[in-house]
Amino acid sequence: MWRDLAPVGRDAGSGGYRRYAWNGADADCRAWFREQAETRGLAYELDRNGNQWAWLGDPSAGDAVVTGSHLDSVPDGGAFDGPLGVVSSFAALDELRRRGARFAKPLAITNFGDEEGARFGLACVGSRLTAGQLTVEKAHELRDGEGVPLTRAMEAAGHDPSAIGPDSERLAGIGAFIELHVEQGRALDLSGDPVGIASAIWPHGRWRFDFRGEANHAGTTRLADRRDPMLTYAETVLAARREAELAGALATFGKISVEPNGVNAIPSLVRGWLDSRAADQAALDTVVAGIEAAAREHADRAGVELRVVQESFTPVVEFEHALRDELGKILGGRLPVLGTGAGHDAGILSASVPTAMLFVRNPTGVSHSPAEYAAEDDCVAGVLALADVLEGLACA
Amino acid sequence: MWRDLAPVGRDAGSGGYRRYAWNGADADCRAWFREQAETRGLAYELDRNGNQWAWLGDPSAGDAVVTGSHLDSVPDGGAFDGPLGVVSSFAALDELRRRGARFAKPLAITNFGDEEGARFGLACVGSRLTAGQLTVEKAHELRDGEGVPLTRAMEAAGHDPSAIGPDSERLAGIGAFIELHVEQGRALDLSGDPVGIASAIWPHGRWRFDFRGEANHAGTTRLADRRDPMLTYAETVLAARREAELAGALATFGKISVEPNGVNAIPSLVRGWLDSRAADQAALDTVVAGIEAAAREHADRAGVELRVVQESFTPVVEFEHALRDELGKILGGRLPVLGTGAGHDAGILSASVPTAMLFVRNPTGVSHSPAEYAAEDDCVAGVLALADVLEGLACA
Repeated sequence: MWRDLAPVGRDAGSGGYRRYAWNGADADCRAWFREQAETRGLAYELDRNGNQWAWLGDPSAGDAVVTGSHLDSVPDGGAFDGPLGVVSSFAALDELRRRGARFAKPLAITNFGDEEGARFGLACVGSRLTAGQLTVEKAHELRDGEGVPLTRAMEAAGHDPSAIGPDSERLAGIGAFIELHVEQGRALDLSGDPVGIASAIWPHGRWRFDFRGEANHAGTTRLADRRDPMLTYAETVLAARREAELAGALATFGKISVEPNGVNAIPSLVRGWLDSRAADQAALDTVVAGIEAAAREHADRAGVELRVVQESFTPVVEFEHALRDELGKILGGRLPVLGTGAGHDAGILSASVPTAMLFVRNPTGVSHSPAEYAAEDDCVAGVLALADVLEGLACA
Repeated sequence: MWRDLAPVGRDAGSGGYRRYAWNGADADCRAWFREQAETRGLAYELDRNGNQWAWLGDPSAGDAVVTGSHLDSVPDGGAFDGPLGVVSSFAALDELRRRGARFAKPLAITNFGDEEGARFGLACVGSRLTAGQLTVEKAHELRDGEGVPLTRAMEAAGHDPSAIGPDSERLAGIGAFIELHVEQGRALDLSGDPVGIASAIWPHGRWRFDFRGEANHAGTTRLADRRDPMLTYAETVLAARREAELAGALATFGKISVEPNGVNAIPSLVRGWLDSRAADQAALDTVVAGIEAAAREHADRAGVELRVVQESFTPVVEFEHALRDELGKILGGRLPVLGTGAGHDAGILSASVPTAMLFVRNPTGVSHSPAEYAAEDDCVAGVLALADVLEGLACA
């Protein structure tokens, strides 16, 4: 399976992946998913919100056990974030069939659409729409960097966007959702375990900072006459690091857009995106308020206008304790339990469905980069753990 | 003339111009130039380096008087920077014909190609090639933001790039070059004069700062484990402002490129372009060395690799004193003489040809912006001054 998927959407220069929602590489990944489903005799289904499903057993029977993840990537992302969960799901099903397992409940494997939000700026669009955490109105407002609306991108990829929206009937038929994912930190590496169980996802969000100044000639405008928003942006980037350090939280400015972005032009607009996360809501509030206050102070001093827009927010997600405990029992209580700062479709679905996550060790902790890595032995351990969990939950 | 040119390459959203070397708007501007030449019975010529010429009289007679400027723009540039000089040249010729002037020397009006360098990152490509200040080898290395080589862009626009290079024969036939330009500062506004004469162009250059760190997940990577080049970039932007203030010089980071530029990814690479200018070489050296030293110190501390590349450099240009004095005499000694931080084709040509510049008042000093402006009365004063100069230099 890996061999077919490895070259799809890979950039020859960086070695990283560029699988963005509804682009060509995404279509190839979707074709791969469908082929994997049909090869195994699973019933393939594309839901209204662009998520893919591969069913073993009758979807309408209820209390289904569902596993899966996503196939899209961040810009120049790694090979494992997302695809490891989908590939492992198919491999775990193969393992259960090898064991001769008898399924008492329907089982499904999923690929959620647009998890990373690399193109339209909002993460987990497929699962959010399904769970009613993104309204249809808001979805219609989403546009990519070139101004293409999400709905038009769906159409261009051959998907009818007219029926997007909450899908509570589908969610009501799911008894448990399990997502396996490569760890995006070094907790398992430090504890020496190949696989772990998730406890919670930190609250996290994205804020857009628009710094508006005045475009002018870089070679003739006196420093005193300038309203240069790049200076205020720079002060804000440094303030973000300070505030995060003080609170033991995370804050990152990783994306920027500048107008007119000319070498000899003072910018009229600098747009910076803040990603911030913390172990609890209070800490996150403190960090973001501190960054915004620093930004406003510097903006006022420089004659720059500042507008801060919260583009997305996900409160803390505590995975269901009963399901988490059941996983621990199935896996013999031998696995560590850990929190994470990364958002996942599992986090979105946990508001509607009992949900749990398994993490596979990442020896460097590096993720969202071509250097992202998991050892083959650890990937096999992940597949076996997932097979054990699915067997425990779905088999007679 | 303005009416035909005003809508070409104008962005409906910003109101600014996007006339970049060899793009569609540039082709429209070039067609406009040719039409203006032919309407006036001037001999139209496109030289090997993509510069346009409109000749009155025999080019091979020698000692020609040449005037003109450029028609391309920075991203979202104003209407006057460049086009004012070309439009005023044609208008000045119309004025001289109205006066019944008799030309003793050949006269030419020019549109130099790719003055702003908005697309290929190097300013004054047309005049640099002609004057031998850009080698053919270096010109072949120039690429735009999408990786398109300059030579292929020329071909795509129907221009044969095989003969680009020094054109000393052409320059030897020019006795004087006069460029009229909108002022890009407020000196004339402060002195209350509609038109001024240039004394010198400050030395100036562009430096690319490549900050290389490590891409990683913004939601899971501990602050201590990060090598985030955005932080080093931010420190460098602030250092540039400090160094420029200390030296009474200018330093601007107005263009940036980030990889992968994802909201939830720590960047692997931040590329920032520094534009810096000062009244003399020693001050400029001090500023750039100070910025680079600060950048290196912060880069070392953050585990970020730094590479600094000088992409272009223009030493101080003192316009020829004899020609400047002659302009003063022709214009009755009534005009102020001023320096400028902006580069111009006139600065490039001044190494090969006696060159002078006229500036037209800019009431706000704003340039490289849709808000760039010159009053109609001042534009007329500029045309009359240019007509006087051309009459004094070229007529019997």
